[in-house]
Amino acid sequence: MTTTATATKQFMTSDQLLEDWQGHRNLTRRVIEAFPEKDLFEFSIGGMRPFAKMATELISIGGPALKGIIENNMKAYSEEGFHPTTKEEILKKWDEETEVINHYFRQISEERFQETFNLFGEYEFPVYQNILYFIDNEIHHRAQGYVYLRSLGIEPPFFWERF
Amino acid sequence: MTTTATATKQFMTSDQLLEDWQGHRNLTRRVIEAFPEKDLFEFSIGGMRPFAKMATELISIGGPALKGIIENNMKAYSEEGFHPTTKEEILKKWDEETEVINHYFRQISEERFQETFNLFGEYEFPVYQNILYFIDNEIHHRAQGYVYLRSLGIEPPFFWERF
Repeated sequence: MTTTATATKQFMTSDQLLEDWQGHRNLTRRVIEAFPEKDLFEFSIGGMRPFAKMATELISIGGPALKGIIENNMKAYSEEGFHPTTKEEILKKWDEETEVINHYFRQISEERFQETFNLFGEYEFPVYQNILYFIDNEIHHRAQGYVYLRSLGIEPPFFWERF
Repeated sequence: MTTTATATKQFMTSDQLLEDWQGHRNLTRRVIEAFPEKDLFEFSIGGMRPFAKMATELISIGGPALKGIIENNMKAYSEEGFHPTTKEEILKKWDEETEVINHYFRQISEERFQETFNLFGEYEFPVYQNILYFIDNEIHHRAQGYVYLRSLGIEPPFFWERF
């Protein structure tokens, strides 16, 4: 592959993206753990959702979205079927989804990353853009969790520690 | 390039990464704009920095880091030399850095993304990882700005609107 100014250059491989994502997921897991049980489900600033709800959203995106991409199904996004009431339940599901993500992500071909897919029957973008969005959305909500923790007087985990 | 299960697969091109980053930077610019002047420099939750300080950090990373990568200099990270006191100054500098980022990013070769570089004489990682970190760090701090805005009763821009 050439690298002249006008040629298409690879930024990163899919293995590198997966490692980066799972590193972010490890950090998000530590943020979930850092919350006192009660605050995880109840604490809020400015009318925003408690962090347990944000974590439920993240759990409802990654694995189900990749499954949809691989199975070519456009099943609507849903948080139904997972109504955690304890931190332990969230962490257990989080770890299960780690394997689901690894399983489906590795089946996506290089060509597929560039193909448009109507994710959840609603988000019609190239697959790589949808996947970037899952990670961006996780960083976004996790950072809101950081503010909740700081506001509760709790030191959050270091942003740069991933594994 | 083959795409068998074990082959190296491209996740995205460097042009796609740059477009994604500049989309994020557009959104961050709108978050800066959404703050009332006084709150941009003074409002804080849980002992965290005001959003003007976070924006100054972001301005001090992207362009200077890419310049360091291209010029192979390991000059230390610094926020010296930029002490904005108005929103207008921050937005002006933000727009200047948009061009600096485009200019230097496009000079990075495919091979270079995979090479280790001791960024700011301190962060020794492959270039692609350092660049991902700049974007992740921007999403992270911007999301803290979202909480500040919500807490001030201000509706932040939509997360998914980038251009």
